Amino acid sequence: MEYPSRTIEAAVEAFAKLPSIGRKSALRLVLHLLKAQPEDAHRLAQAIVALKEDTRRCEVCHNIAEERLCGVCLNTRRNPNLICVVEDIRDLLAIERTGHYTGTYHVLEGLISPLDGIGPGQLNVESLLRRLAAAPASEVILALNARMEGETTAFYLARKIGAELPQIKISSLARGVSVGGELEYADELTLSRSLLHRVPYASFQNPNNGMG
Amino acid sequence: MEYPSRTIEAAVEAFAKLPSIGRKSALRLVLHLLKAQPEDAHRLAQAIVALKEDTRRCEVCHNIAEERLCGVCLNTRRNPNLICVVEDIRDLLAIERTGHYTGTYHVLEGLISPLDGIGPGQLNVESLLRRLAAAPASEVILALNARMEGETTAFYLARKIGAELPQIKISSLARGVSVGGELEYADELTLSRSLLHRVPYASFQNPNNGMG
Repeated sequence: MEYPSRTIEAAVEAFAKLPSIGRKSALRLVLHLLKAQPEDAHRLAQAIVALKEDTRRCEVCHNIAEERLCGVCLNTRRNPNLICVVEDIRDLLAIERTGHYTGTYHVLEGLISPLDGIGPGQLNVESLLRRLAAAPASEVILALNARMEGETTAFYLARKIGAELPQIKISSLARGVSVGGELEYADELTLSRSLLHRVPYASFQNPNNGMG
Repeated sequence: MEYPSRTIEAAVEAFAKLPSIGRKSALRLVLHLLKAQPEDAHRLAQAIVALKEDTRRCEVCHNIAEERLCGVCLNTRRNPNLICVVEDIRDLLAIERTGHYTGTYHVLEGLISPLDGIGPGQLNVESLLRRLAAAPASEVILALNARMEGETTAFYLARKIGAELPQIKISSLARGVSVGGELEYADELTLSRSLLHRVPYASFQNPNNGMG
């Protein structure tokens, strides 16, 4: 007998399927819930069900939404002419947390990865091109990671958008030494990119390019 | 906007109430569930509800059970004359995992802690005394922690049982250097107890005192 009941075992198995939760942590969570107020346990269960039943993808940008459009697309104070392309919701949230981006998003829900058999067809690329064709944005920011998949996806999107809608400005995130980072601890690739893409000193004082 | 929808926010809040899960881990779990198969999410939600609705405490030993009695008490191969008193289910599971204990348990669901206002009345002490009076066990093992609360509880139980049922043997867990532990890294208290309660060398070869 590893667990005192099948109910406990089922709950441990279910929790242990979550990322970074092993069977030991799962058991700790289960024992906590056994002692917790029934309302708290039911609230958690309901919240999990609601995640699957009450959320959907924004019809424009594929962000999580509760209605047809997400909070960003519904917000009339956001600039629809500036579209930031991100891999997933996590990256969107990271940019939102800066509190400085006032444009809109397009969530790809993945990156092109030939090794994993993921091509543009499995991502929200078609909807981005349709969106741009219907209402050409002034700028598309490719905020993708600097690894193989991110670079491949950025290259593909830049070429595709450039061919169909050459008037749209395409940019990507600046790479460089982190603010507050020590030069000596930066990796060589980051430091060399940071030198290559050095910016006029004054631009730090007036960073008024689409940021609020 | 910290979260893209109220559904996400509610789920993050609910997960962040669990022990050792902060808001960042909670968000990671929520984003995982958004992508997961609906069956997996529903299985987790159902398991949580079942924890509250399908489990109860064993009427004899207060272990988690699905029926009137728990798996240990129902098991006719367990020795009911040997009762191991533990603080909570976690300790019971730790002892079960050794695979060497063949007696039964009594789960106190806490320890006496005057500082926290917890007295014997809030614990399953009365039911232990009733259980022993109805069917006197040959031995009660007090497997409680060696901190203030554990020692206080052990002292209280030993005196209470000794007064009412003096024929019952009362023992407690051996304290000492862990098996495989280096002497030089053991704390002084553990090492001195280990010396004080030294055992005849032969007893290691024949540890047949209630263990299977």
